[in-house]
Amino acid sequence: MSRNKTGGLAGVVAGRTEICTVGKEGAGLTYRGYDIGDLVDNACFEEVAYLLHHGRLPGARELAAYREKLASLRALPGALRQTLEAIPADTHPMDVMRTGCSVLGNLEPEGDFAAQRDVADRLLAAFPSIVMYWHRFHADGKRIETATDDDSVAGHFLHMLHDAPPGELHRRTLDISLILYAEHEFNASTFTARVTAATLSDFHSAITGAIGALRGPLHGGANEAAMELIERFDSPQAAAIGVREMLARRELIMGFGHRVYTRSDPRNSVNKRMSKRLAEEAGDDRLYRVSEAIEQVMWDEKKLFANADFYSASMYHFMGIPTYLFTPIFVCSRITGWSAHVFEQRADNKLIRPAAEYTGPRLQTWAPLSARV
Amino acid sequence: MSRNKTGGLAGVVAGRTEICTVGKEGAGLTYRGYDIGDLVDNACFEEVAYLLHHGRLPGARELAAYREKLASLRALPGALRQTLEAIPADTHPMDVMRTGCSVLGNLEPEGDFAAQRDVADRLLAAFPSIVMYWHRFHADGKRIETATDDDSVAGHFLHMLHDAPPGELHRRTLDISLILYAEHEFNASTFTARVTAATLSDFHSAITGAIGALRGPLHGGANEAAMELIERFDSPQAAAIGVREMLARRELIMGFGHRVYTRSDPRNSVNKRMSKRLAEEAGDDRLYRVSEAIEQVMWDEKKLFANADFYSASMYHFMGIPTYLFTPIFVCSRITGWSAHVFEQRADNKLIRPAAEYTGPRLQTWAPLSARV
Repeated sequence: MSRNKTGGLAGVVAGRTEICTVGKEGAGLTYRGYDIGDLVDNACFEEVAYLLHHGRLPGARELAAYREKLASLRALPGALRQTLEAIPADTHPMDVMRTGCSVLGNLEPEGDFAAQRDVADRLLAAFPSIVMYWHRFHADGKRIETATDDDSVAGHFLHMLHDAPPGELHRRTLDISLILYAEHEFNASTFTARVTAATLSDFHSAITGAIGALRGPLHGGANEAAMELIERFDSPQAAAIGVREMLARRELIMGFGHRVYTRSDPRNSVNKRMSKRLAEEAGDDRLYRVSEAIEQVMWDEKKLFANADFYSASMYHFMGIPTYLFTPIFVCSRITGWSAHVFEQRADNKLIRPAAEYTGPRLQTWAPLSARV
Repeated sequence: MSRNKTGGLAGVVAGRTEICTVGKEGAGLTYRGYDIGDLVDNACFEEVAYLLHHGRLPGARELAAYREKLASLRALPGALRQTLEAIPADTHPMDVMRTGCSVLGNLEPEGDFAAQRDVADRLLAAFPSIVMYWHRFHADGKRIETATDDDSVAGHFLHMLHDAPPGELHRRTLDISLILYAEHEFNASTFTARVTAATLSDFHSAITGAIGALRGPLHGGANEAAMELIERFDSPQAAAIGVREMLARRELIMGFGHRVYTRSDPRNSVNKRMSKRLAEEAGDDRLYRVSEAIEQVMWDEKKLFANADFYSASMYHFMGIPTYLFTPIFVCSRITGWSAHVFEQRADNKLIRPAAEYTGPRLQTWAPLSARV
């Protein structure tokens, strides 16, 4: 029996994957052998989804057909819309997505695993509809039509949010963000999906579980926490002082460092560039510079680098996305990687069942109820 | 980086626990140091739930108060009842429980972790209500009252199922079954709950994920598969021939062997004894003897022993429980162990994030869409 000294299975190989490398080749992140930099510069999100699912890039016709298929899967069944309406307005949207995914599995069960690719596409197409239908119903009292004719997931998301198709800068910025978040090897939510899939449970169970894991502040919830931090400060100077004070009080500051990356997060430079561009467009003189100041302090004081979550916070904010919808965007992206991992787990399955080190009491003698204090 | 040669993290220590030993001391299964044999002979299920949650047996007053508390938590909110009514009649009840747990988390969110014990008790009390409300609504067109005055979880479950309080033999048999299934160390569903809890996500996310993992036929779904097998045969002779034929065709036979136990499953002798008793009561001349015949063939041919799932199948059947409700009973029991593990994970938390062995393509050169086939 091997013992994992540092805990949390850090560095322990839990299985094989052909999908992704983190902190290894190229810029430090590859999907199916393609460097994240190449994907960000050249691909659209649907192309990346296809790549993750099929292991190769689509041809022009395949990509067009795939975008059409996804666009055709955006409508929500009536029973799901009713459930979304009944979920209270103050619910965390990640909990809404968890329920939405589970209910979709009730209404459209996977059945045979032969249909797994269709389930994956349906979830990819429907997740923006689920979160946005709920959001608009409770925020604006409006029952929106989720079946729009936008030709991208990013366009669909922003269209439903703002009641109008987005401009190309915003659409492409979100598109790139969806590419950056699409896949990240055996992170906690993906690992949850694989542990679930390994019992030969259904697709919706694996993804519902993954959403629940991604919800945690140590995982997907980090960019919301980053935004709350950034918004506290009126100026870069105030931010530098404030963050130093937080560090002195040993408070946890989200959006920095990473379990696997040791020197930098390859996604951060892309996010930072996009955040800056949107700040210029918005005429912002505060949020972006506050973010830079916090990044500098974290490096100077702790030698911690900004990860993918830090600049995505201000970037989303500049697109008019409410902070509580940040982690749901992560879901709308990562569903592609989760699905690829469920396919891979099922293709060569073995139950994932680790051992535990027992540190509890020795064998106890039974004491009848009457003999207890 | 350590490599797990056999896959599925078999034998790899993923963390510490004070809750349970499997395949070690005593009869091979202990909860908080108490042998499963002692618990089955002396304790009631609520006493075991208390033991798992608190790490010690309750006193007489504590136990009475705990049973009263659980009994007071059986009613379901209107929005949850409506969702259960809207879930189609042919849905797998495990998918119903997954949604039920998630929706309860929407309506009664955990908020601060300080309330975690109340959430655990609420789920323990409400799970029988959730599955039985849905079952009776769709099977009998009846909106049942789930707040009964039964003083045990087992009594509550059977009362709602049969519209009358159960006799003591059936009540205590189910009570013992709930004790047997309550906890089992780092099994796949419990591990799912811990991976989820380790991101500091909420209680309902951890349990919703665990239900999704338990649903799989390689985990909780085994007793349903065992029942389907047993029902195929008219006689012990036919069963012996049929199972030998299945083995020759290399078909998987559920309810035998175990990842951790190597010689026997300590829960099986208890189940077998109870199944025999109920068979005698029911005047059954077939199911129990067919089960015995299958057990014998599996031992003779494969040296595989019956695990906890095999005789629980016929035992539940004799109590008039429909096969598709077998795995939900597992949920109604294991929620106690899952909750104890969430408490434990949170008390000394570290993100659970393993590594992967990459076996995919090397770094690829980008090919523009127009250059692809």
